[in-house]
Amino acid sequence: MLGKVNHIAIAVPDLATATATYRDTLGATVSAPQALPEHGVTVVFVELPNTKVELLEPLGAASPIAAFLEKSPAGGMHHICYEVDDILAVRDRLVASGARVLGDGNPKTGAHGKPVLFLHPKDFLGTLVELEEV
Amino acid sequence: MLGKVNHIAIAVPDLATATATYRDTLGATVSAPQALPEHGVTVVFVELPNTKVELLEPLGAASPIAAFLEKSPAGGMHHICYEVDDILAVRDRLVASGARVLGDGNPKTGAHGKPVLFLHPKDFLGTLVELEEV
Repeated sequence: MLGKVNHIAIAVPDLATATATYRDTLGATVSAPQALPEHGVTVVFVELPNTKVELLEPLGAASPIAAFLEKSPAGGMHHICYEVDDILAVRDRLVASGARVLGDGNPKTGAHGKPVLFLHPKDFLGTLVELEEV
Repeated sequence: MLGKVNHIAIAVPDLATATATYRDTLGATVSAPQALPEHGVTVVFVELPNTKVELLEPLGAASPIAAFLEKSPAGGMHHICYEVDDILAVRDRLVASGARVLGDGNPKTGAHGKPVLFLHPKDFLGTLVELEEV
């Protein structure tokens, strides 16, 4: 059911510093920042040979990562995104198994313009899981 | 400098439950448990098409993930492991840039029998980073 790890997201208090850490200190290739007002974040992707790291900075007053950064002001791993073929079929199977989908249960459009859903961390080992249809 | 994401590690309080979550609920392929007394953990690898998720359960009284699970009893993302070609050259470059290496600064042998090092989360956006020479 699970496909590739599309990305691992790291919430950061300052995107410029975080980008410099990955680009200059760790020598990785990074994208230009992309504002996603619908998701309340600005993102930079770190391009690795087999997957991506997504650096997330809060955007706007109601950013969904603001509470995370209050608890972890230096930043930290925020979620992991797995690719799936058919997000509605996977959602229905997970819900039938007792897992909880965040929000209204319907996919939103993610950073790559594809349908995404988030699953409740309490049902997945304390880890926020994003599913992205590819 | 950074190569592939070798794995994303999730610390869990109970490996059997965690394995069932990934195998049965999410439909992924999982390995048999592997005890790593030198690292104070028992690990199960979730095999994904492009990388792995490493499920970590504490092993022994002095497990390095015990404190993490005290703060996050349900589990959570613990570290991210990047592959590098020459771990000593990368270490020396990172130390010269001001980054801190955990432990005595010398590589240990990781779950795959390869040299590994851990970098201080405070120098990497609140994220514990493992480097593995491949």
